[in-house]
Amino acid sequence: MTASGARVLAHPSLAEIRVEHVLHALADPIRLRIVRQMAVASDGLTCSHFVLPVAKSTLTHHFRVLRESGVIHQIYRGTAKMNELRGDDLEKLFPGLLDGVLRAADHEAARLAGS
Amino acid sequence: MTASGARVLAHPSLAEIRVEHVLHALADPIRLRIVRQMAVASDGLTCSHFVLPVAKSTLTHHFRVLRESGVIHQIYRGTAKMNELRGDDLEKLFPGLLDGVLRAADHEAARLAGS
Repeated sequence: MTASGARVLAHPSLAEIRVEHVLHALADPIRLRIVRQMAVASDGLTCSHFVLPVAKSTLTHHFRVLRESGVIHQIYRGTAKMNELRGDDLEKLFPGLLDGVLRAADHEAARLAGS
Repeated sequence: MTASGARVLAHPSLAEIRVEHVLHALADPIRLRIVRQMAVASDGLTCSHFVLPVAKSTLTHHFRVLRESGVIHQIYRGTAKMNELRGDDLEKLFPGLLDGVLRAADHEAARLAGS
């Protein structure tokens, strides 16, 4: 690909984001782990930052689902993709939703670790 | 079926409920509509109470997903199934999660109705 436009990834606008798609994106355990890591990161993270028990192609798929549902923003920086949560956008659309899901995931992780 | 035990439906215990399964159950637009209706009902609702644009067998499937994920409680009353949200159980496990999802769904419904 030589056209620079080809390397810009498509993201839903605020008006296009749907709560069902956001919940579907967050309902997968691997995607939820990715989102939890992003939520505590102070900066964008490359895909290769995430060490998860899935194939690289599967991980790419998970990032695409997160991007297409409006949960994350992805931009190319050189050949790497940088990933950031769309926390402000989601908060504007669905106040408290992402925090509620992250808190629930934290509760569950603590509960399972303790059992 | 003559044994009364055969008509008791299986429900996950609190310890068996997983946030991923709850989110998956809520991520479907039809199931989310069912849950929103239950959330404002003062009492249990029969399956036939819900008038939704899906086949009866599909609706039965949706109720099963909601029950098996821990979102609703179903009991037989005669030949009808009565459905109730497990709001208290979910609040105990994942404080604020269900309310956050319901609020997000309300926001979205208002937004889409206004556009």
